[in-house]
Amino acid sequence: VINAGKSQHNEDQACCEVVFVERRPSPRGRPPSREGSEELTGGRRGFYFHYWALFDGHAGSGAAVMASKHLHLHICEQLRDLVDILQDPSPPPLCLPPDAGASPTEPSRVSLAEDNGEVPNDAVPRFHLEKAVSHESLVIGAIENAFKHMDEQIERERTSRRLSGGCCALAAVYLLGKFYVANAGDSRAIIIRNGEIIPMSREFTPETERQRLAVFAFLRPELLGKEFTHLEFPRRVQPKELGRKMLYRDQNMNGWAYKKIEEADLKFPLIYGEGKKARVMATIGVTRGLGDHDLKVFSSNIHIKPFLSCFPEVRVYDLTQYEHCPDDVLVLGTDGLWDVTNDKEVASVVMEVLTSYEPNDPCRYTVVAQELVVRSRGMLKERGWRLANDKLGSSDDISVFVIPL
Amino acid sequence: VINAGKSQHNEDQACCEVVFVERRPSPRGRPPSREGSEELTGGRRGFYFHYWALFDGHAGSGAAVMASKHLHLHICEQLRDLVDILQDPSPPPLCLPPDAGASPTEPSRVSLAEDNGEVPNDAVPRFHLEKAVSHESLVIGAIENAFKHMDEQIERERTSRRLSGGCCALAAVYLLGKFYVANAGDSRAIIIRNGEIIPMSREFTPETERQRLAVFAFLRPELLGKEFTHLEFPRRVQPKELGRKMLYRDQNMNGWAYKKIEEADLKFPLIYGEGKKARVMATIGVTRGLGDHDLKVFSSNIHIKPFLSCFPEVRVYDLTQYEHCPDDVLVLGTDGLWDVTNDKEVASVVMEVLTSYEPNDPCRYTVVAQELVVRSRGMLKERGWRLANDKLGSSDDISVFVIPL
Repeated sequence: VINAGKSQHNEDQACCEVVFVERRPSPRGRPPSREGSEELTGGRRGFYFHYWALFDGHAGSGAAVMASKHLHLHICEQLRDLVDILQDPSPPPLCLPPDAGASPTEPSRVSLAEDNGEVPNDAVPRFHLEKAVSHESLVIGAIENAFKHMDEQIERERTSRRLSGGCCALAAVYLLGKFYVANAGDSRAIIIRNGEIIPMSREFTPETERQRLAVFAFLRPELLGKEFTHLEFPRRVQPKELGRKMLYRDQNMNGWAYKKIEEADLKFPLIYGEGKKARVMATIGVTRGLGDHDLKVFSSNIHIKPFLSCFPEVRVYDLTQYEHCPDDVLVLGTDGLWDVTNDKEVASVVMEVLTSYEPNDPCRYTVVAQELVVRSRGMLKERGWRLANDKLGSSDDISVFVIPL
Repeated sequence: VINAGKSQHNEDQACCEVVFVERRPSPRGRPPSREGSEELTGGRRGFYFHYWALFDGHAGSGAAVMASKHLHLHICEQLRDLVDILQDPSPPPLCLPPDAGASPTEPSRVSLAEDNGEVPNDAVPRFHLEKAVSHESLVIGAIENAFKHMDEQIERERTSRRLSGGCCALAAVYLLGKFYVANAGDSRAIIIRNGEIIPMSREFTPETERQRLAVFAFLRPELLGKEFTHLEFPRRVQPKELGRKMLYRDQNMNGWAYKKIEEADLKFPLIYGEGKKARVMATIGVTRGLGDHDLKVFSSNIHIKPFLSCFPEVRVYDLTQYEHCPDDVLVLGTDGLWDVTNDKEVASVVMEVLTSYEPNDPCRYTVVAQELVVRSRGMLKERGWRLANDKLGSSDDISVFVIPL
C-alpha cells in the first residue's frame, strides 16, 4: 500500500522473476562439451534462479524503479561466468586457465595442462598456504558485485533518465538449492519454519553502522566539511556548555566517557538521533542502498554518498538441510511493515491465515501478504490510521512478499 | 607453564588484585556529603573492584610485564571520576555542572541549579533528542579508555624502560554486581554455569578483523608502503599468472569473485595465511593488544602499529541476574590453552575436578586451573610433548584463571 493512502505515488518498488543464466560463450569458440541441463533450457547451457526483491525508495522513486528493473539482470550477468563452476562439485579453481573464460570443466583445460607444465591443476593444492573457496561464497561475491554495478548504472544514467533519490534493496535469490538473502538498508527478511522465526537479514541504519561511519569520518575528516564532528554526544552540545564535561564516545568506543567540551565539539554530530529518527549528517536515516549520488546536506555542498555503502550483507539458507511443510515461508518486508508489526506478530498472522486455506490453494500466500500489509496500515478512523490495538498504523509505504519454502 | 618447558622466560604475564577506587576530591574542596560506603573504606569515599588479567606477550615480555603492573591502575584512574555517579541509581548526568568534577550527588549541585537557570537538571530530558546512557556503558567506556592510556604509557616509556614487543590483554573486572570482561587479542574467556558454556569474549585476529584492516588499508594506502595490497587472494599470485583470472575479495566483500590479475596484484597481501598462521603484513598474528609501537615489516620501514587496535571489546555479565552454585566459574585463558583444549573439554575438566573436592575447599579452583594447564601442555614423550590422546600438546605459554562466580 502507498503510505496509508496519503499520497498518489509509491516509493516502494518490487520485482519477482525467474531468470535464466546462460553460460557465456567460450572466447575460443569451442562447443560446450558437458551434457546435462541442456534438455530444460532448449539447448542453451545454464541454470535458472528465482528472484524476489523489494526496493524502498526515498526522495523520489527513480532509483527504486530503476533497481527493480535491472538488479536481477546484474546478478545474472555476474553469474554467467560461473555457470560451469557452480555446477561442478569439485572446489572452484583459484585461478582460471589463460584465455579460457571461466570454463574449467572443458577438456581443453586438461589438454592445456598436459601441453604446458606451467598451468596448475587447481584441484590439487600446490601452495603452502592456499585458501579453500566454496561455491556458496562465489554466489555471495556475484550478488555483492551485482549491487555495486547496479549502483554504478544509476550513477551513470541518473542525469539522462532524471532519476532522483535512492533506495534500500532487499533481494532473495533461490539458486541450486539455496536461498541467498541480500540486504542493503532497513528492509528485513525472516523465515518462519514450523513456527520458529529465523532472521535472514540485519538492518543497516545510522545506529547499527555507527562505528563504520565514525571510523570513516575519522580517516576522511575533509568529507565532514567543517560542519560535522565524528564524535557522538548524547544530545546537542550548546555553546554555553564550553569547558564543561559532557558524555561522548569516539570511533573506537562502545561505552561512554566524559570529556571537556571544546570549540570543535559544537559542530553537529555525524550521527544524531535515536531509533527511526537517527540520521547521518542530519539528512538520511539509512546507511546502505542504491542511488543517492547527488544527495547533499541541506543548504551545503557536503556530499552524503561517500558515507553510504551499496554493498549488501548476504545470508544463506540451505533448503536441502531441512524438511519443509506448506506453511513454511520466507517473508520479505519494507520497514513500513516491520515498524508496526514485529516478528512474532508476523509469524502469527502467517499461521492464522495459512491454516484457514487448503495447503494446495495457490492464493493462500498472497492472502497472507495482503493481510500483513492491511494490518500494518490499520483502518482510517477519526484520529488517523489506527491498528487493531488503536496504536498508530504505519504511515509509510508497505510492501510484503510471502514466499513458500 | 612456560611453553612446555622449552625456554627460560615466560611471555605470559598475569595480575590479580582488589583495587580501591577513591573518589577524586572535589576541585572546590567541599566535604563529601553522602553517607554509605565510608564504613568499609576507613572514611575514604569510593568502592572496590576485583580484577584478574592475562597478558600474552610476543617478541619479548616487556609490554606484558608492564601492562600486568599498570592496567588495573589505569582502570582505577578512569573510574575515580565516576564514584558518585555509579553509586547513584538515577541515570548518569549527560553534562556535569561547571567546575564540579564529576560529583552530581552533592547538594551543591542542587543549589547551583537553583542559583543559576542555565545549569540543566540532567535527570529530566529537556532536549527533543536525548540519549539515555547507562551506568554500565560508563564502566565500559572507562575500561576502553584505560586500555588506551596503558598503550600510551608503554609508548612513552618504552625507550627508557627498554620495553620490547607487545601483548594481548584479557581483563575481568568485577564491579558493583557485574563482571566486565575486556579482550584485546586472541586470549579467551568463558563462563561455565550449571554445565552451560557462555562465551565472554571474541578473538581479534587477522581473519576475524579482515574487513576492518582492509578498509583501513584502502583509506590509507600510503601505510602499505608499495609492498602490500589491500586485496585478498586465496594464495600468492605469481608473476606468470598476469592477465589470468584469479579469485579475490576487496574491503567490501564477504564473498569471492574472479578478477584479471594486474601488476599491482603481485604485491604481498595485507592479510595472508589461515587460522593460527594468518598474519598482518606477513608479521603479526593478532590485531589488537598493547605495545608493538616499534614493530615493522621485516627488513623494511613499514610500521604495523597503525593497523593494530589497543581497544578491547567489553562484554558484561550481570551476576545478580542468575543463581550461582559453587561449581559455576569464569575461565580466562591465553591461546596456549584454547589452541589444544576446546570449550567443552574445559567445561568437563572443570566439572570433573570440582566434584572431587568439597564445595568449601578454597584450593579447588586453583587445582582446576593447574589441571587445565597441565593437560594442555601434555607429557614429555620421545616424540615431544603429547596430550592424553597422543596429539601434540601446546608448545605456547599457557596461563589460566578459574574464578568462582
